[in-house]
This record gives sequence, C-alpha cells and structure tokens, in this order.
Amino acid sequence: MKHFLLILALFVLSATNLVLAQTSKAIEDFKPSEVNQPGKAFPQVNSEGRVRAQISAPEAKLVQLDIGGVKYDMVKDEDGVWTGESAPQDEGFHYYQLNIDGASVPDPGTKFFYGAGRWGSGIEIPAHDRDFYAMKEVPHGLVSELNYFSPLTQSFRRCFVYTPPGYETSTDQRYPVLYLQHGSFEDETGWPGQGKANLILDNLIAEKKAVPMIIVMDNGYAYEPHENSDGNSRPVSVFEEVMISEIIPMIDARFRTILDRKHRAIAGLSMGANQTMRIIMNNLGVFSNYGGFSGTSNYPSSSEIDPATFLDGKFDDGKKVNEQIDVFWLGLGTKEPEPFPGSVGAFRKMLEKQGIEYVYYESPETAHEWQTWRRSLHEYAQRLFKKN
Amino acid sequence: MKHFLLILALFVLSATNLVLAQTSKAIEDFKPSEVNQPGKAFPQVNSEGRVRAQISAPEAKLVQLDIGGVKYDMVKDEDGVWTGESAPQDEGFHYYQLNIDGASVPDPGTKFFYGAGRWGSGIEIPAHDRDFYAMKEVPHGLVSELNYFSPLTQSFRRCFVYTPPGYETSTDQRYPVLYLQHGSFEDETGWPGQGKANLILDNLIAEKKAVPMIIVMDNGYAYEPHENSDGNSRPVSVFEEVMISEIIPMIDARFRTILDRKHRAIAGLSMGANQTMRIIMNNLGVFSNYGGFSGTSNYPSSSEIDPATFLDGKFDDGKKVNEQIDVFWLGLGTKEPEPFPGSVGAFRKMLEKQGIEYVYYESPETAHEWQTWRRSLHEYAQRLFKKN
Repeated sequence: MKHFLLILALFVLSATNLVLAQTSKAIEDFKPSEVNQPGKAFPQVNSEGRVRAQISAPEAKLVQLDIGGVKYDMVKDEDGVWTGESAPQDEGFHYYQLNIDGASVPDPGTKFFYGAGRWGSGIEIPAHDRDFYAMKEVPHGLVSELNYFSPLTQSFRRCFVYTPPGYETSTDQRYPVLYLQHGSFEDETGWPGQGKANLILDNLIAEKKAVPMIIVMDNGYAYEPHENSDGNSRPVSVFEEVMISEIIPMIDARFRTILDRKHRAIAGLSMGANQTMRIIMNNLGVFSNYGGFSGTSNYPSSSEIDPATFLDGKFDDGKKVNEQIDVFWLGLGTKEPEPFPGSVGAFRKMLEKQGIEYVYYESPETAHEWQTWRRSLHEYAQRLFKKN
Repeated sequence: MKHFLLILALFVLSATNLVLAQTSKAIEDFKPSEVNQPGKAFPQVNSEGRVRAQISAPEAKLVQLDIGGVKYDMVKDEDGVWTGESAPQDEGFHYYQLNIDGASVPDPGTKFFYGAGRWGSGIEIPAHDRDFYAMKEVPHGLVSELNYFSPLTQSFRRCFVYTPPGYETSTDQRYPVLYLQHGSFEDETGWPGQGKANLILDNLIAEKKAVPMIIVMDNGYAYEPHENSDGNSRPVSVFEEVMISEIIPMIDARFRTILDRKHRAIAGLSMGANQTMRIIMNNLGVFSNYGGFSGTSNYPSSSEIDPATFLDGKFDDGKKVNEQIDVFWLGLGTKEPEPFPGSVGAFRKMLEKQGIEYVYYESPETAHEWQTWRRSLHEYAQRLFKKN
C-alpha cells in the first residue's frame, strides 16, 4: 500500500510536471498585437492566445508581465532585454501592465485604453468571430466628441456620439438613439475605443442587419458638486438626472433624433447595466428598449427577488412591463465569475415568474470582459427599433 | 600664482555649488498637472515650471525623470516611493518619460499623447496666456473621427474634423475649411489633443474673432503601398496626392463646405509646414491661404534661396503670388533651436526680396513645441477668410 501511494504520488508529480512543461512551451507563431503602437514589434500574441511581452531594462532585477490577475516572470538576455509570456488568454481585449522592480507601468509597446481606473496597456487576442467588428471597406459613420457644461454637476463633461453613414448628407432623415454606457472604473472612451461600437454598427448597417441609429456614449460618473469637497460623506450620484435633464435634451437639440420613447434605447455593461435598468424603469416615458450586458440592478445579490419591493415594484405588473418595453435584452459571458451569473440568474427567474418577455444571450467562452460586450452590442443592436 | 589659481578654482567650485544648490531647491507650491489621469496626484508642476514626478518602485536601483533632453535622478524614500523634479520648463505642453533601471516607460500618472514617435506621457506647464485654449462655458463645436479607405495607399486612414458650434443645426450654412497638419513623429491626434485646436476655435468664434470654419486634421504620413514591403527602397510619400484627390473630395462631399479656393486654407507645423507649403504652391487652384508654423520648405537649409529654382520657381513671380494668396503666414518660437530660425529666416529674406506679402509672428519664450503652435493657430485663424 505504501509503495502504491508512493508510485501514485510520483506519477501525479511527473504528470503535473509534464503539464507544466507543456504549458510553458509556447507555439512559435507569435505576431504583433493589433493594438500595438505604430511600428512596435511587441507585445505579440500566438495562436494559443498567449501574450509575449518584451522590454529593455538592463539594470532591472525583476520584470513581470501582469495580465489576467497573474504575474509572469520575464527573462533577461545578454543585451538587457526582458522577454516573457503568459498562459493562454480568452479571445478578445484585455487590460494589462508590466512590473519593473516593483513599479507598475504601462507597456510602452501598446496603445493605451481607459479601464481598471487608469489609462493603461491593452492587448487583442484575435477572436474567431472578429469579423463583425473589423474595419472594412463599408461606409463609416462618424464618432464625434462633444464637450458640454453640466449645470447639475457644475463640471465640464464629455460624450461621444456615433452618427451612422449618410447622417451628414441625408438631412431630411431623423434617427433613433441608443444611449450606451460603460462599466465601473471605465469611462466614455470605452465603447468607441476597445468596445468598437462604431465599427460594429457600421458593419451591421452595411449588411442591413441593424437600423441606422445614433449612439450616445457618456460618462456614468456624475456627482453633486457640493459633495466633491466633503471627504466624510459619500458622493451622491446624479447620473440619472444628468441623463434625463441634460444629455437627452442636448442630443435631441443638436442631432436629428426621433423624439419619442419608441425610438430611444438605453443599455450598459456591468455597472452601466445596473444604472441604465434603473433609469429606464424610472423613465418609461422616455425609453422603450433596454439592454443589460453582464449586469442587472439586483447586483451583487443572487437572492430571490421580490417584485413587489425590487426597484419600488417596477416589475410587479409584468403585463404592463411587456406593453411598455419593446426589447428587454440580457447578455452574459459563459466564463463570467460570481456574482454575475448568480445575480443575472436571480433576475431572470424574477422576469420569468412575472411573465416578462426578454431575450437572453450567452457569449461563448468569454468572461467579464469586452469581447462579451462587443458580442452583446452586436446581438442587441440587431433587435432595436424594428417594432412599429 | 599657484595659490591664486587654487583659490580661484575653489571660489569657482563653491559658486558653482551654490548655483546648483539654489537650482535644486524648488518653490513648494506644486500642484497636479492638468493632464494627469483622473485622481492622480503626480506628476505636479510648481510656479517656476518645475516638474515633480513620483512613482513606487521599491526594488529599483535608479529611477529618473526624463524631460527636455535631460535625465533627473529621483530619490527613494523608506516606502520605496521615488520622487524627483526637473529644472524649470517652458510654458505649455511637453512630452516626457520615466526611466526605471534602464527601462524607458510612460509615467502612469499622466494621460498619454502621440509625439516623438510614440504614445507617451505629457505635462502641462500652465502658461500665462492659457485662457485662449481653456475649456469655457461657450458653445462647443464637435471633433469627429472619420475613418476612410484610401485607394492611393491601399490602407485605412483617419482624420479628425472640427465642425464649429451651430454646424449641426444651421443646415443651410456652408463653411470655409482649414486643412491643418501635425509635425514629424506626430499624427492626426496632435491638433485635437495637445494642440487644443477645437478649444482655440470655440473661444475665438465665441469672441467673434474668427470666422466659423471647419478644420480637417489628417495624418501626414502616406506612402505608396508597394514600397511598404520593400526594405531597400525609401517609401515614396503620396501625401500631396492623398490630400488633393482623396481627403478634399471626401470632406467636400460629406460636410457643408464652400467649394472654392478662396475658402480653403492649408497650414501645418514643422514637417507639416514644409509639406503644406509644397501642397499649396503646387495647387493654387485649390487653396488661397497658407500657414507655416515653425517650418518652411527650404528646411533644413539656412542658405540663401534662389527663387528661380526653389520649388520649381513657384515664388519667382512675386506679384502673381500676392494675387493668388490671401494670407501667407509664418510663425516661430523665440527659443527655437537651429535649423528653424536659420531656415525660416532665409525663407523670409526670399519673400522680402520677391516683394511677397506675408505675416510673421513670434511666440515669446517658447521653443519647437506645442505652445508655439497653439499660439500660431490662435493668431493665424483670426486672419482667415476675411477678404472678399
């Protein structure tokens, strides 16, 4: 018995080593990431989705590639250049950074993206379905930066406005509008940047799969001004008020929108899904379409929802919700960690109990990341503004 | 004599030390730079224009602040946080980076800007005249990102288009256009980013000092596709052809422009000044206004220009040039290094010899940097499109 256990242990150990050895041996088909800075050879990605980073740091003692919550030691060559690679990453876009002798810094090889509360490096693992957000020879809409002063927050704010191809010349046409929000520790650059919202719509419109629409991407952080200087109290969010009484009137005055609830949609990812669900349920006279990408307003709870009390009973009359909302859409990645599957699952159970019609989409093999949200927008946008 | 020299040497040394000590003692009124990432306390700038950077790098041996061509050693505290400051910098915007044990990386405290051939850190030294590019409660135009396929280069290219306040709603109005180019190792993000072209025009238009105009900011690097893969031959620039046969027709088709030469201007900074001077002189049927900010087409030569041969004799008939060009404008910073003052000076001598009318502006106390070019645009834009 003792011998058997010893042999078993050795077998397990050697099998483990074998797996480790195989894991660390990367297939040598690395290519520069598509979001590298012009002319930069590194970082690179191989067909397994491994990321290989490289940086010159001749005097450094320890350089690490920090991606997906794991720090991978890099190795220095005789010229002082450090190289190292990660385990395979999921398809799509990821934030990451380098650690040089304890300093966390962006990799100077990549373009920079705002997420995780900072402007930092990004990497693109080519996805099998990347065609839907590829830059193609189709008519391209504009993404316009709009700066405005917000009286409610007493601050200058900014949104990006996608106008579809033909908007500038078809001056008699008016368009429906999707208000599309980012997640926590992200900002208004997320959807037009790593989210590729403009390219997703350009391609869908070229294929006649989506109605030409305007998309407004604003910043979900908006606070009352007098709270900003008071360190003892939690800042009071006025994002809903900014959306309803500042952003929408400004967009309706400045762009050729269709001025009714049937032609307005609101959607968001994660924190944005939570925020926008509250906004539509409080303002059913303003919007008739909702999209929740990897989030719902019961977050982070996975407990059973009581529709009589949840969001002040806004889902209590299921028939009325069905009458008022044209598209109620939820999406989630199959690899998302808790509490997302639990809280979205509890929310879906409530919808089903109430007889509320909704669409549910699962993004295969993606986590709480941008590939889930690109796919969600791609699916969601095709359903919008098609009911009369 | 020996003693005298020794005493003199000691005196000089101690005086030098005194100067060094004074130089290194900064006035303690540092404030976070206005182009820091949200919530980041460093880098900071004081009233002398010194930059103080800070980064945690507990295991590092040497960390330096690398700005204005000088590397300043930073000092580590007991928590492993490095802090250090530069000598006073000129007013305005500067690119910079950190060096951590030999690795050149962006400072994670700042937003990132494209210049010097990379996306990297930037710092803003508050200028005495910063009001003219400040974000104010005035009507704001849009800055629109326009992606397009360029047959000449067989590539996707991008420009940013500023449309003035009122453009979206005054649909009967047509506007003049300024084509505005960046410098070498910069790109189409320079003018709408660190150049603040949109804010400069928003403010000028609000004060009725400039005519409402469209500004098109494209990328000055454009090469024939077959040259890209051939390492032995120098890539052939086709930027002029792209400007004339791709960009301008696209802008005229998509935006409400005034379709004649009197209502088109072209300007650029440094490399862009050189490029755009060639473009206007080769295409006087297309443009009637020129702006050269810190550059001319005789760059880098300071030699006397022979108008009979320079640019194929385009300046040989001064009277004709005066008839054809409404505004011929040149600008330079008083602290610019050679060859800029020499080559611009030689060019001005040629203009004067030929009797060609031009405006010359000097930006006080600025070098070959963005504060010179912000001021140049501010001065230049006020003169445009005012002749009948």
